[in-house]
Formats: sequence, structure tokens, C-alpha cells
Amino acid sequence: MLIHSRKQRGFRTLITQEKLQTILSRLKSQEGVRGVVVTNMEGLPLSSDLDSETTENVAAIITSLVGKALDAVRELREGSLSFLTLDTTKGQINIAPDVSEGVILVVLKNNE
Amino acid sequence: MLIHSRKQRGFRTLITQEKLQTILSRLKSQEGVRGVVVTNMEGLPLSSDLDSETTENVAAIITSLVGKALDAVRELREGSLSFLTLDTTKGQINIAPDVSEGVILVVLKNNE
Repeated sequence: MLIHSRKQRGFRTLITQEKLQTILSRLKSQEGVRGVVVTNMEGLPLSSDLDSETTENVAAIITSLVGKALDAVRELREGSLSFLTLDTTKGQINIAPDVSEGVILVVLKNNE
Repeated sequence: MLIHSRKQRGFRTLITQEKLQTILSRLKSQEGVRGVVVTNMEGLPLSSDLDSETTENVAAIITSLVGKALDAVRELREGSLSFLTLDTTKGQINIAPDVSEGVILVVLKNNE
């Protein structure tokens, strides 16, 4: 099965659903990982292993934060943003925005 | 010389200017570090080794981003924010907000 093209779902290139699932499974199997969410740049979730309410919250809130971080990096002339990491008292939120592909990968981890 | 109390400058406890300078000097001496800015939560710079225009930009833009990140962590119920890291094509921006002290430490690094 192919996932939809960017126009429909936020992916420019066609990658197989299987390939995406393999990557996500590998991420999820890492120690401490409690959730992996893929969203498009508009905050629409494309893939998630969390419940739908949490997924929608993560997608909306993180997409908005990424927009602000992209603005900050541009205004400070620091090139382009590769990763955004939030260390919290509960764990870590790793965010990898891929602007050219129009997707954001979010990995939620517990403290070790 | 003592730096001002929180009411005036954003520090709750009085620490000596010398002690602050020692900490900042240690940070600046690390490899790849090209700038260290301390700002209060309103974006007013308290200490910096960058030119005044860059300092004001960093203080304003990073304070605004930290506000958004604090909101995100609270809304996602992830505890409290300890660190925020931006990896860019130019290097890394390390941000340590201390809400109780009302200050934000920003360290700008080049890629190694």
C-alpha cells in the first residue's frame, strides 16, 4: 500500500506504508519511547501509536511550537532547523521537522 | 558588586557579579561557543558577550520561543521544561530557562 502524495497527506515523495511502519516500529522499540507521532505542517496527524486525543494534542501543540522555532531560527539567521529537543521533568520530546517533505516526526521519551 | 534583586533585574536571590561572570566565562571557554546571553523572562538582556543588536535579537526571539515551549509542556502535561535545544545547519542553540529565578540562559554554539 502506498501512502498518499503530499497534496493529499503531506508527503511529497511516495514511500510505502510498510517502509514507514518499519521506521516507526524501530523508533518505538527504543528504550523509554512511549509514543511516536508523525504530523503534517498543518498539525494533521499522519501516524501515531497514542490514543486519538493525545495524538491530536501533540500534533497541534508541537506543530505550532515548530512554526515558532522555524521563525526564530530564520530571524536569528542560524540556517535551517534540523531538530528541536525539549527536556522536561517527565522525559524528553524529540522533534524532527522536515519542511521540504512537509512532515514533523515527534518522539516522546520517558526519563531513563 | 551585587547584581540587583529579582524585582529590579530578574534575579530572586542575590549572587555576586563575580560568581556570575565566573560561570559565564567557563561556558564561553568551551569549544565552539560563540555567544552566551542571559535574559530575564520579559526578554531584557542581563548579560551578554555579543554585540548589542544581536543580544537584543537573541533575548527577544528566544524569550518568545521559551514562552511558547513552556505553554506546550504545560498543555501536554509533561511536567516542567528544563532545557530547550535547537539544532540548526549553523550549530546549536542551548536554552536553559529558570522560571523560579526569572532568567533564561542562552548558549550559541558552532557546529564542531
